Amino acid sequence: MVRKTHLGSILFLFLGLGSFFPTPVQGQVKDEDALYIRKIYDAALTQGQSYVWLEYLTNRIGARLSGSPQAAAAVEYVRQVLDTLALDRVELQPCVVPHWDRGEKEQARIVYSPKIGSQDLHVLALGNSQGTGPMGITGEVVEVRSLDEVDRLGASVAGKIVFFNRPLDPTQINTFNAYGGAVDQRGSGASRASKYGAIGVLVRSMTTRLDDVPHTGGMYYEAGVNPIPAFGLSTNDSELLHRVLQEGPVRVFMRNTSRMLDPKPSHNVIGEIKGSERPDEIILVGGHLDSWVVGTGAHDDGAGCVQAMDVLWLLRQMGYTPKRTIRCVLFMNEENGGAGAAAYAKASDDKKERHIAGIESDRGGFTPRGFTCEAEDAVFEGKFKKILAWSDLLEPYGLSIKKGGSGADISRLKSQKGLMIGFEPVTQRYFDVHHTDIDRFDTVNKRELELGVAAMASLVYLLDKYGM
Amino acid sequence: MVRKTHLGSILFLFLGLGSFFPTPVQGQVKDEDALYIRKIYDAALTQGQSYVWLEYLTNRIGARLSGSPQAAAAVEYVRQVLDTLALDRVELQPCVVPHWDRGEKEQARIVYSPKIGSQDLHVLALGNSQGTGPMGITGEVVEVRSLDEVDRLGASVAGKIVFFNRPLDPTQINTFNAYGGAVDQRGSGASRASKYGAIGVLVRSMTTRLDDVPHTGGMYYEAGVNPIPAFGLSTNDSELLHRVLQEGPVRVFMRNTSRMLDPKPSHNVIGEIKGSERPDEIILVGGHLDSWVVGTGAHDDGAGCVQAMDVLWLLRQMGYTPKRTIRCVLFMNEENGGAGAAAYAKASDDKKERHIAGIESDRGGFTPRGFTCEAEDAVFEGKFKKILAWSDLLEPYGLSIKKGGSGADISRLKSQKGLMIGFEPVTQRYFDVHHTDIDRFDTVNKRELELGVAAMASLVYLLDKYGM
Repeated sequence: MVRKTHLGSILFLFLGLGSFFPTPVQGQVKDEDALYIRKIYDAALTQGQSYVWLEYLTNRIGARLSGSPQAAAAVEYVRQVLDTLALDRVELQPCVVPHWDRGEKEQARIVYSPKIGSQDLHVLALGNSQGTGPMGITGEVVEVRSLDEVDRLGASVAGKIVFFNRPLDPTQINTFNAYGGAVDQRGSGASRASKYGAIGVLVRSMTTRLDDVPHTGGMYYEAGVNPIPAFGLSTNDSELLHRVLQEGPVRVFMRNTSRMLDPKPSHNVIGEIKGSERPDEIILVGGHLDSWVVGTGAHDDGAGCVQAMDVLWLLRQMGYTPKRTIRCVLFMNEENGGAGAAAYAKASDDKKERHIAGIESDRGGFTPRGFTCEAEDAVFEGKFKKILAWSDLLEPYGLSIKKGGSGADISRLKSQKGLMIGFEPVTQRYFDVHHTDIDRFDTVNKRELELGVAAMASLVYLLDKYGM
Repeated sequence: MVRKTHLGSILFLFLGLGSFFPTPVQGQVKDEDALYIRKIYDAALTQGQSYVWLEYLTNRIGARLSGSPQAAAAVEYVRQVLDTLALDRVELQPCVVPHWDRGEKEQARIVYSPKIGSQDLHVLALGNSQGTGPMGITGEVVEVRSLDEVDRLGASVAGKIVFFNRPLDPTQINTFNAYGGAVDQRGSGASRASKYGAIGVLVRSMTTRLDDVPHTGGMYYEAGVNPIPAFGLSTNDSELLHRVLQEGPVRVFMRNTSRMLDPKPSHNVIGEIKGSERPDEIILVGGHLDSWVVGTGAHDDGAGCVQAMDVLWLLRQMGYTPKRTIRCVLFMNEENGGAGAAAYAKASDDKKERHIAGIESDRGGFTPRGFTCEAEDAVFEGKFKKILAWSDLLEPYGLSIKKGGSGADISRLKSQKGLMIGFEPVTQRYFDVHHTDIDRFDTVNKRELELGVAAMASLVYLLDKYGM
């Protein structure tokens, strides 16, 4: 147990600082903060629960697609866990989620090429994709590198299968930038190809790695387009298909029975420690409960969920009494709709809540590197300067503060004028497993996961102590 | 191909700087350097060979204990690879290495405990350990937490097996510090226990992880002590043994046939690009070829070897003409004797060579975080200030420069008054695999490995351009 001290308030009395809560200064206050952050790390690395919770969420519950029984089980599991943490409030917040059904295991094969004859391909239906019908479809393949190239080809893609094969840029140091530079093919490729009469779409998987692991991920049909089926294709098979296309025409067979069912009721899960002095100022920490339909959503985003939960558990465990309200939110439906985030933001706005800060962990459970911050333009500089002033306290743990996005589930809370923060781990391995069958518990390292908890809890501590 | 520019020299002519090679300054020179480092990263991430070489060294050659046929195969393989890189010199440098033979697979079991009866234990003979004799040994177990505790127990350990069970400190952020705080048990435990008549030693494996994977690693007998056998014990089994010891006396059986054979001739492998202007100033980049006898030495230290080789390949590939001599050294026998490092240093001193800098990669092939630097006291501050001035150029790649050790194979080269540098990657996963059967190729990530090459090549470029 660590007793909360009131040095901040004492200093205020002596120095008559203009703000009720002192900003960190050199000397004693910073020493006290450094000491407390060290205690947070000690606790996270010796008493953290995140790894055990993640084992349950992944190995015992499994993949948690919105609308699935497993997603419901995950809601119930984390609610029960939060109930054991002696929080002030645990709540299920209703939302209505899209319910996509992957259907039978999808198939694709090169039905004939002069070079290799027939060949099965490693594919996964992209999330939200429609099915081919039970008989499947067969078409000649047209390879493109961009959405624009489809526009240029125009009607010549009619009746064909468009193969989007622009790789992620391996020279990006942050793999999220590489992902961002290629993912339009997955999100919008089917709509673009459908406009010109294509019958299906294959999309190179969103990874720099060369392997046989197909990646799924969200795709969306623009209003009015014929919803043609769309598959993610492994990078090895994308290279293969590219090579055989050099030899002459290639026909591919695709079959899936995916379909969009009626929307389903589901929930965000919220747990909260009420602030002792400023309960109306909310500091959110969160991740998303849902995953895609393969693997077990370990890094994406089981890790973020259990980290957020563990932040509350650790602060409770340490006897920390927050001034402000610290709220853990496990969002539903980040992957294919964002219904949970929308429901949360609406409810929060309706209640005129004020999130002074939010931290989202949705970039994998790897070794922490720091945080990326965003806010509305009018308030950003002041807040960024304030958080930057804490750099000295975070640097010993390898953490740096940068400008950048926060996350899909919390960025809309910017409208409440707070600072929205994305937890940033090392990104090199994330897209090896992202949206695949191999995003499993054994790819998560216990220490790396716990260091993330400690990083987030330390920032929550500073946000709580000094406000934002 | 990237043409080498001579902006540095031009600036010198205009500004009449005191040193022949300008130190980096704001503006054009830094821009040029930033550009060139970006090109190094591009090349490393698109044309690097390290991953392919590592596959061969690990999967096809395997574990490479000093004196083993695989160590000889590794010497020959990397020599052949270096021969293809159009270097100015490739050389095998003789050394004589200890030749330890692990013998038959070691065994250990709890022969009787009131609580669990008999139970096999996951063990590995520690490197250099003597055998138990063909019949094995059986003794009562005495658990201790430190070498000092053995001294305190004194003669009461006679005839017993001493079980060193002080865990690595999980609250250390850098796992090498945790390792450093526990490894005396492995290195000196047997000698200490033998002094008081113990018959064998079990040492808790050097990892914070709880699992069934025993770790080996170097141990040494002090002159004059009876060389009793020493095993590494998995952390799960260490916890088990600790628990059953609470119930009452526990007897353990140990058997291994390890022995030290006669020393064997072996080699360091050296490849070098001769400097065009100052060939007598050497910049070394290296790792060690040998490994322990289990697994395939992928992170320890196949990764460091192929990274060092790739630094030369990349600079050649880019058409870079170094001013100074850039030398890749693959050391033999880092793990159990350091014979290669000693032979290299002696030969270098004898030839009155001058290593202005050395970079050793022997902390795993993980995502780079920076470099740690050491030098002789009299020259350290100046050199450290110089390398710190390059921080702006390295920071965009997540690299920082710190004080700290360089590495076992190069630190003695400090006597030549240069700056000795250890490549520092993220350390969280290293001791999951270090000195175990699971230190294998599939635990190495291609991008992480290549980012390490790029980091080292970038620093070599700056050291070459500006000297040290």
